Amino acid sequence: MPFCGYSHAVSTDLVQLVTAIAQRARAASRVLATASAEAKNAALARLAELLLGSTDALLAANAKDLAAARENNLTGAQIDRLTLDAKRIAQMAEGVRRVAALPDPVGEELERTVRPNGLEIRKLRVPIGVIGIIYESRPNVTIDCAVLCLKSGNAAILRGGTESFHTNRMLVEIIHQALSARSTLPSSSEAWAKEDGLPADAVQLIPTTDRAALTTLLKLDDLIHCIIPRGGESLIRFVVENSTIPVIKHFKGVCFVYIDKDADPDMAEHIVINAKVQRPGVCNAAEQLLVHVGVAGAFLPRLARALLEKNVELRCDAASAAILQQHGLAHRAAAPEDFTTEFLDLIIAVRVTPSLDDAIATINRDSSAHSDAIVTRDAGAARCFLAGVDSATVFWNASTRFNDGFEFGLGAEIGISTDRLHARGPMGLRELCSYKYVITGTGQVRG
Amino acid sequence: MPFCGYSHAVSTDLVQLVTAIAQRARAASRVLATASAEAKNAALARLAELLLGSTDALLAANAKDLAAARENNLTGAQIDRLTLDAKRIAQMAEGVRRVAALPDPVGEELERTVRPNGLEIRKLRVPIGVIGIIYESRPNVTIDCAVLCLKSGNAAILRGGTESFHTNRMLVEIIHQALSARSTLPSSSEAWAKEDGLPADAVQLIPTTDRAALTTLLKLDDLIHCIIPRGGESLIRFVVENSTIPVIKHFKGVCFVYIDKDADPDMAEHIVINAKVQRPGVCNAAEQLLVHVGVAGAFLPRLARALLEKNVELRCDAASAAILQQHGLAHRAAAPEDFTTEFLDLIIAVRVTPSLDDAIATINRDSSAHSDAIVTRDAGAARCFLAGVDSATVFWNASTRFNDGFEFGLGAEIGISTDRLHARGPMGLRELCSYKYVITGTGQVRG
Repeated sequence: MPFCGYSHAVSTDLVQLVTAIAQRARAASRVLATASAEAKNAALARLAELLLGSTDALLAANAKDLAAARENNLTGAQIDRLTLDAKRIAQMAEGVRRVAALPDPVGEELERTVRPNGLEIRKLRVPIGVIGIIYESRPNVTIDCAVLCLKSGNAAILRGGTESFHTNRMLVEIIHQALSARSTLPSSSEAWAKEDGLPADAVQLIPTTDRAALTTLLKLDDLIHCIIPRGGESLIRFVVENSTIPVIKHFKGVCFVYIDKDADPDMAEHIVINAKVQRPGVCNAAEQLLVHVGVAGAFLPRLARALLEKNVELRCDAASAAILQQHGLAHRAAAPEDFTTEFLDLIIAVRVTPSLDDAIATINRDSSAHSDAIVTRDAGAARCFLAGVDSATVFWNASTRFNDGFEFGLGAEIGISTDRLHARGPMGLRELCSYKYVITGTGQVRG
Repeated sequence: MPFCGYSHAVSTDLVQLVTAIAQRARAASRVLATASAEAKNAALARLAELLLGSTDALLAANAKDLAAARENNLTGAQIDRLTLDAKRIAQMAEGVRRVAALPDPVGEELERTVRPNGLEIRKLRVPIGVIGIIYESRPNVTIDCAVLCLKSGNAAILRGGTESFHTNRMLVEIIHQALSARSTLPSSSEAWAKEDGLPADAVQLIPTTDRAALTTLLKLDDLIHCIIPRGGESLIRFVVENSTIPVIKHFKGVCFVYIDKDADPDMAEHIVINAKVQRPGVCNAAEQLLVHVGVAGAFLPRLARALLEKNVELRCDAASAAILQQHGLAHRAAAPEDFTTEFLDLIIAVRVTPSLDDAIATINRDSSAHSDAIVTRDAGAARCFLAGVDSATVFWNASTRFNDGFEFGLGAEIGISTDRLHARGPMGLRELCSYKYVITGTGQVRG
């Protein structure tokens, strides 16, 4: 459902359009790579102020998207995700200020050695270059991604969803104002007066939601260094299958909570309820429960009562079904695919496991390696679990819902990775950086 | 030119063979991920000893490859790369001991924070998982890669070149002996007695050099986490184009030396000669020279004399040609493609540049972002160059030839990356690792 004029352009025009955007982004990335923290933070400060000052314009743009959403019969939840109001705009501005307040990752020294021949070898954090972000409807993603990329010295190419097209266009217009120095701020500050601002091409929006534009973008591996897709599994699969640029992603979150035989039952109940119920539609919500056979008989009935009270449906293996049956507690038999499903709903699959080792093996086989937790008082069991479960984030006595950039103190996140190269888990400013080796000598040559 | 029987198997057999290797590697990688440093180092100590004790068997296997090489009319340089002798075997064993002596990267704490809610968040280094290494003829690469993967807790799948097939098979046989505990060593050591050794599937060789086996391997993205190709540009392009697994690589090294207007002329000559002549056939040798216009008239003639003495051919732009012409020094006019060529030979392309900024822009446009150097006494100019040149490794007053894992103190290197995600520059043990987040709580749930 392309929204704007460009989508009717012939294919050559579209290729030229998207290529020109990427070329401008690459040029901007070279300026950003050596931009001072002051210049970047000044732009972010201007952005926070401009967002607050543009509430009316943003609400007007958002109203167009909302009208289209109602016409297209989007669900209430979808419309809610899309909706801006004064409070959400203020939250966006606050988020921008929070990222501005974080230390600049660029130039950080990661390692330093002096070799026997006197060569000094330093490994310094540098921006990746140009980042393409492909996402769906939530407008705050536009601001989060733009701000994290800017602060980490990367140029961003944003390809948002059809549903939030007008809102995103207005947001990027505001970002462009913020990038140019002294856009709305008094020139009294010496730090700002020294700056010419940052290139507007640092943040660009693909001005069409035509899939052909996306396919073109994903092949520009000479100009774009990393693609981060955010959204449903089908969007992410499309990106992975069509990209020649490295993609960092997670497809889905099939997250486990394992209740060990030495779990504190109150804590276990508390954590399972939170992980399943607090926000069931997100990737770090629990979908799968494993209970050690030694405590299943005592623990499962009380947990089932608590889950049923929250309207959670239990899909059980034979052993857990037998226990709930005995207590007359509602449940249904799980189908095999339930044990690898991301329900994103008030449903949980339940299995009884004979041992810690079996639990670890089950999780390594069936989870999506996103967020998996053990509840236990046994430090030895916890150590085995934390070392043996091969997931991006593993938890001991805490809810899987904490696997999140804000909760980690990253200010925001550009995504969560279940990949193993470059970044794993929530990605913030540091994960948007590469590094380079800088070597200083006094005329050394190799013998 | 497939060497062995498998290559005539029908395609389904080949797919099954390669898939089974990858499945065994993935299973072995789960054991390796939590193997102790002692167990890994004991296997490496056994390997060093076994290599020395297997000199005769290795030379016999190598003789088969050398006979085939002569039959196939390989060049002297190619045969030299392929040849083992007692000294080279001893060097291999020494390399194994050097890697064993390095600290174990697995489990290293990279970051640690305690959140206001009391959650402890640790970012710990863990192995990537399964690494596929695709390489050409040098047998020492087999040992370097296997040893670096083992020490970093990764399973390795090796696909070596046709030319060194028999040598590689013998080397991997020796590695398998070393992996099994107490293979040749007294059981007196308590540390070893506690260990059962490591799985033989930790290091596997694809038993055919059939390209179809390689193509199959490159699609097993569920089982293999990273591909590292080493060799000529055409091999690497083949791997990149056929892999659905992330590839870390460099295609080539078009490396620059820039002589600034404030360069010490003696140091500049010394560095250029070393970077060009010391070993012209390798990726970190200089191929391109830029000289600031302010010193070109004085410096280029003396440098040209020194290069010509070493039989280096100079391919010049108009400005540098005019200077050499004036002094009656041999040179030829460069073709446009010379300025982006990796000669791997005693040839250097020469340009005069009007400014530091132009030099930086030229390098960012024409280099392969591998190893680029500035020679200058001006610290300000050096800082601009080191920050502005967007290459894996940048040098100030040192030869580009130092861009190498051994020279960096990594013990060995599994490759050099000009990519920007995960690893850049020489890759050692740390670069063969990913990380995971390990979160410890006391029952925290999200509000």
